[in-house]
Amino acid sequence: MLKGILQFAHQLLEESVERGETVIDATCGNGNDTLFLSKTVGDDGHVFAFDIQEQAHQETKALLTKHGKSNVSLIHDSHEHVEKYVHNEIGGAIFNLGYLPRSDKRIITKPDTTIAAIDAILNRLKKNKLVVIVVYHGHEGGKEEKEAVLNYCMALDQKKFSVLQYRFINQVNHPPFLLAIQKK
Amino acid sequence: MLKGILQFAHQLLEESVERGETVIDATCGNGNDTLFLSKTVGDDGHVFAFDIQEQAHQETKALLTKHGKSNVSLIHDSHEHVEKYVHNEIGGAIFNLGYLPRSDKRIITKPDTTIAAIDAILNRLKKNKLVVIVVYHGHEGGKEEKEAVLNYCMALDQKKFSVLQYRFINQVNHPPFLLAIQKK
Repeated sequence: MLKGILQFAHQLLEESVERGETVIDATCGNGNDTLFLSKTVGDDGHVFAFDIQEQAHQETKALLTKHGKSNVSLIHDSHEHVEKYVHNEIGGAIFNLGYLPRSDKRIITKPDTTIAAIDAILNRLKKNKLVVIVVYHGHEGGKEEKEAVLNYCMALDQKKFSVLQYRFINQVNHPPFLLAIQKK
Repeated sequence: MLKGILQFAHQLLEESVERGETVIDATCGNGNDTLFLSKTVGDDGHVFAFDIQEQAHQETKALLTKHGKSNVSLIHDSHEHVEKYVHNEIGGAIFNLGYLPRSDKRIITKPDTTIAAIDAILNRLKKNKLVVIVVYHGHEGGKEEKEAVLNYCMALDQKKFSVLQYRFINQVNHPPFLLAIQKK
């Protein structure tokens, strides 16, 4: 009934992403979303998965190998440089903002680069498609990033984009929430 | 993909309400939600539809007659008195907060009675079931009701309830948003 944040994120991507499309995991982390996108676009599609941390690449690579997936480009660079790597129109994207679980909590996504990446992806996003952003903000620096991303989203022109916020409002300890930007 | 507020409200109720159940339209208004609930619970179920305005009753009655629906009790009383009328366990409920479209804008739902009604319904709500609240708040008095209902929801014990807020954050002119309370 009421879907959790991650379940709702995958539901939105499943409804939006089509086989054969080019999609982006802007923060591949432990690789779960990369694998999910890889399955969703199928062998004719392609996933560009970004992360600046070696550990994230290793975990993602291991997961993809285990599942026999070869339709992914793992990119060891900041997602703000997405335009250097992705030249097709984009069928969807996901961000998980915060730090890599079970890793160095000082290595976090940052407001300026996150917003530059969202902006670059929106420029190449197909009509009606989605950028889904899961915002973890309980860590040090999380509040600043949350506010910057919310401000960016609230200022997006409603003639060009719809921005949904999906959040549970009676939980303690800064629960993550979801933002979904749909291009009109 | 990104469902509008009313579409998402109906989706949640469709996923949650089962045939044969007793459900509540706390603000029957033009009758659209009453008819929707009447169809969803089927002939073995029952809808209690509240409104304090004669015009709402007439519109709802006409709509139900047109669709041959007889599983609805139309109640001309404030929804805060729900316990006087409903003695079964409840399978779901919907509120549309604000005023009746094409009617007297001074007749609005009010914080105290709205919260008393939500509270009474939560007491009788079955486990895992939902109360869905569509909050219109652009009218005079809307801001106060919005804040009171949000404060009430945010204070609900997370061990007993999950409260979701679903809202579009880049629209001008006080767009309505949705709250959904699920009993654990």
